[in-house]
Amino acid sequence: MFVKEGIIASPGIAIAKAFVYEKSVVEVNQNKVNDAQRELERFHCALKESHKQIETIRQKAISEFGDEEGAIFEAHAMVLEDPEFTDGVEAEINDNHLSADYAVKIVTERFCAIFDQMDDPYFSARALDIKDVGTRVLQNILGIVQADLSRLDEDVIIIADDLTPSDTAQMDKKRVKGFATNIGSRTSHTAIIARSLEIPAVLGLYDITKTVKTGDIVVVDGLAGKVTVNPNAEQTENFKIEKKKYQEYRKELDELKDFEAITLDGHKVELVGNIGETNDIDGVIKNGGVGIGLFRTEFLYMNNDTMPGEEKQLAAYRSALEAFPNGPVIIRTLDIGGDKKLPYLSMDDEANPFLGLRAIRLCFKEVELFKIQLRAILRASVYGNAHIMFPMISSITEVRQAKAILTECMKELDEANISYDKKIKIGVMIEIPSAAIAADIIAKEVDFFSIGTNDLCQYTLAVDRMNQNVAYLYDPFNPAILRLVRQVTNVSEKKTDCFTGMCGEMAGDPMAAILLLGLGLDEFSMSALSIPKIKKIIRSVRFEDAKAIAQTALNLETGEEVTNYILAEMKKLKIDI
Amino acid sequence: MFVKEGIIASPGIAIAKAFVYEKSVVEVNQNKVNDAQRELERFHCALKESHKQIETIRQKAISEFGDEEGAIFEAHAMVLEDPEFTDGVEAEINDNHLSADYAVKIVTERFCAIFDQMDDPYFSARALDIKDVGTRVLQNILGIVQADLSRLDEDVIIIADDLTPSDTAQMDKKRVKGFATNIGSRTSHTAIIARSLEIPAVLGLYDITKTVKTGDIVVVDGLAGKVTVNPNAEQTENFKIEKKKYQEYRKELDELKDFEAITLDGHKVELVGNIGETNDIDGVIKNGGVGIGLFRTEFLYMNNDTMPGEEKQLAAYRSALEAFPNGPVIIRTLDIGGDKKLPYLSMDDEANPFLGLRAIRLCFKEVELFKIQLRAILRASVYGNAHIMFPMISSITEVRQAKAILTECMKELDEANISYDKKIKIGVMIEIPSAAIAADIIAKEVDFFSIGTNDLCQYTLAVDRMNQNVAYLYDPFNPAILRLVRQVTNVSEKKTDCFTGMCGEMAGDPMAAILLLGLGLDEFSMSALSIPKIKKIIRSVRFEDAKAIAQTALNLETGEEVTNYILAEMKKLKIDI
Repeated sequence: MFVKEGIIASPGIAIAKAFVYEKSVVEVNQNKVNDAQRELERFHCALKESHKQIETIRQKAISEFGDEEGAIFEAHAMVLEDPEFTDGVEAEINDNHLSADYAVKIVTERFCAIFDQMDDPYFSARALDIKDVGTRVLQNILGIVQADLSRLDEDVIIIADDLTPSDTAQMDKKRVKGFATNIGSRTSHTAIIARSLEIPAVLGLYDITKTVKTGDIVVVDGLAGKVTVNPNAEQTENFKIEKKKYQEYRKELDELKDFEAITLDGHKVELVGNIGETNDIDGVIKNGGVGIGLFRTEFLYMNNDTMPGEEKQLAAYRSALEAFPNGPVIIRTLDIGGDKKLPYLSMDDEANPFLGLRAIRLCFKEVELFKIQLRAILRASVYGNAHIMFPMISSITEVRQAKAILTECMKELDEANISYDKKIKIGVMIEIPSAAIAADIIAKEVDFFSIGTNDLCQYTLAVDRMNQNVAYLYDPFNPAILRLVRQVTNVSEKKTDCFTGMCGEMAGDPMAAILLLGLGLDEFSMSALSIPKIKKIIRSVRFEDAKAIAQTALNLETGEEVTNYILAEMKKLKIDI
Repeated sequence: MFVKEGIIASPGIAIAKAFVYEKSVVEVNQNKVNDAQRELERFHCALKESHKQIETIRQKAISEFGDEEGAIFEAHAMVLEDPEFTDGVEAEINDNHLSADYAVKIVTERFCAIFDQMDDPYFSARALDIKDVGTRVLQNILGIVQADLSRLDEDVIIIADDLTPSDTAQMDKKRVKGFATNIGSRTSHTAIIARSLEIPAVLGLYDITKTVKTGDIVVVDGLAGKVTVNPNAEQTENFKIEKKKYQEYRKELDELKDFEAITLDGHKVELVGNIGETNDIDGVIKNGGVGIGLFRTEFLYMNNDTMPGEEKQLAAYRSALEAFPNGPVIIRTLDIGGDKKLPYLSMDDEANPFLGLRAIRLCFKEVELFKIQLRAILRASVYGNAHIMFPMISSITEVRQAKAILTECMKELDEANISYDKKIKIGVMIEIPSAAIAADIIAKEVDFFSIGTNDLCQYTLAVDRMNQNVAYLYDPFNPAILRLVRQVTNVSEKKTDCFTGMCGEMAGDPMAAILLLGLGLDEFSMSALSIPKIKKIIRSVRFEDAKAIAQTALNLETGEEVTNYILAEMKKLKIDI
């Protein structure tokens, strides 16, 4: 028996035999080749074959996982047609005399590297897509048939390095009871699939493929983030009890779907979803979110080789608005720059991109780009309860500047006789310390605030959380952060028709729910899957108690003291995390 | 007649004929040479000649400008002896078959590039030293005799691209009435010399050497930052009046030297100096500073190829402490990282160095390096009123961690029977927003705060002020910054024996003086030359008025409103900036 600890990617407990899924290592011919024509043919045959395979998998993915998963394979098909990819490979073959296989390998790697640099789950996913497609084309060139997961004779836990969409799409869902992988994070494809299949997954185990053999009995504990290999009888019994308890808890959460997020003493808040594309809308509805607290529009821009036009954007915003006839849909204007770049927009290299030309700052430099988006949002506003949100606001001057441009767009629409919601709500992200500190000033110009804890925390503590040398200092529970949150809610409490939301990761953290409730947050926006759990916590507590807890936390000395205190209070109140 | 605008580097007004000082362009032999022995000889002859010249200039510099300026030429002599330089040149000659002249040129450029990358006036100055020495050696190899400034027949304004220490040292000081240069900044050598000679200088004029001819009549207006070429009779008359007014004002400032910094209604504050090396101490004394508010110890580390030992540091700290028997000497522990590197300490490249492993964070990783400095400060503490200050503190946890290491050092000294000030004052820089927001918590562990406005402003507004695309957002008068300052002074006011100082650029800004006084600042630390002006302003105002002004400023909407308001109030109070 031994136990390994990893990253919790999907909750639950599964007990089954291990199936160690290892991929064949593909070796390419790195010698120069003279017959470019032949290599081009090999490449194009493989492209065609890949197209066919992807279409088959896409159908299967749609029928088994729905449109959202199917869309991944549409994206895969698009990679095959992307001239940056195909022309790139052809150029390597023609100009550098590479073999088709080597050319595909290096072009794929080059592509992946661009997306991998970006600190964003969406673009990491995109890198994975490209890698997946590249591997498929390569295997087709070399005639390699990948071992697959579609023929499983018994219930298994999949043990792998990592799982790609191609792996998971063809997988025999009835037989797969859990995942344990060497690499991956909470936002990686394997994690997303595990959560959608509602099977436990523990990722980031480094060498699980080397320490577990096919046939070992494995317990994936997605609650504790542990994998137990070959447990004894007593342990197995305990896991079975835990598993049952968890299933009951899940059932309870599912039953909450149509209930309000209301405390025991009648204080209501709004639970809404963060989305990056229209495919994410279904998840929010399914999990009982009443609207969208953050439509991250970057994806519309990043997923294209050219700027998305007004019509394309309109269609996306309209889908979200129509999906939530009452609930708010908060559309954040383009938040690009920092670590995210657009292929069709030249941006300077910066010594400290997080303190550079990002988001609204960039939009003020690229006014035409900004206006296209604002017009699309305005036009969509007739289809529901749209809110516009400006990111990276540091002072009231920028809010006024953005609103002046919005007014220009409104005039243009008026002149063209195009209707829009003339009372569309306008708000700002609170993610720069000065905006929180001067929230009372900014309130003069806005209808709502939405606190972006990830950036707010980075700036307030002067820590790049992606920098491993200093990431230990990143702590949203630091009393300074809590005080800034309170400063903002304090302003919206005093102003009629003004609310404060939060759309950073903290909003979906069960540990933070009571604290944020007590600090006076009106709206919690998070990834769809976190909604039921947060709702359950809010429905289990009295608002008066939450306020008292928050008040105490504001005066504790360190983030550690805050988390310990909250854990103790939740225990007293008998609320599970 | 025409007027050009540049950077104000030294105040005052001068009217005289232009002397356009252009340097000969040195051309080197870039061909491969075979006789390495001969090239080595040429190099060593030039080294010897350069040594002689530098020694002569050094004597002249000491007699005319004092030890501080003499030290520059000690540094020059050290470059000649630096094995990194001499071995580098020899290697280029031996291994790459370069001519002596070409080898000197590229080794000099390589050296300069290292220091030039750093955003720090001290290291830019060091780059200039190396360039100056490299040029001298090169000229000696090639037998070029540089036109010099020591034989001037009449009063002149020097018009140049830039001036090096070698240029200014040999200059005929009686004849030189002002500087106007193409390049340079407030902290460049030309600026420093102009201020020490008390002659006006306007720098950064881009092409002044091309638009002015020797013999033109030039007015350097170091108050307005303008250079007027060939003014008419009326303009000349006006400049003469302005010049007289300024001379009277200067006299008044000089007379303030031994007076206290006290308001009309009896509120006293402390005006102290920022220094980077012991050479800067004299300037602080001369200008009436009562102590050191910031001893930036980086220079001790950067100016060496190896880590400065305990003895060397002790000597430097002791000099400062002995220079101010009563006044505080606040020694800031090593603030390296970010944009400053040490040649003997390997540091990772970082995506956002300003949010990375800097200052105290680095010292926690390099505990031995940190302890050497702490022991040196402790040992120096017996010679005066030493204060230790920790930079880049984000929470109380780091203060405790730093103090624990300090306690270890104290124990080591106790064991070795070495005495130190057991009640040495301990403080922190307030330069990260969280530290200002949680100042009440941090106060439990410290005796003083010192607000570093440059970084505080960068983090609070999420702006890298060196990034030209966003520098427009950097504004220390932003109400959010003022509120943070007030939050800190509010804490020190309530705690006995605790004070708040400021050592960022804002503390020496005449525009900010009344505001900061009113916000409750106890100590203003600045470059020596700013002290008299700030003292005059403080002695011209009532504390009650300053408090009222600050209170109003805290509730204005923008930095622009704040500056306009202060200008208006200063005008009402008849206080010049």
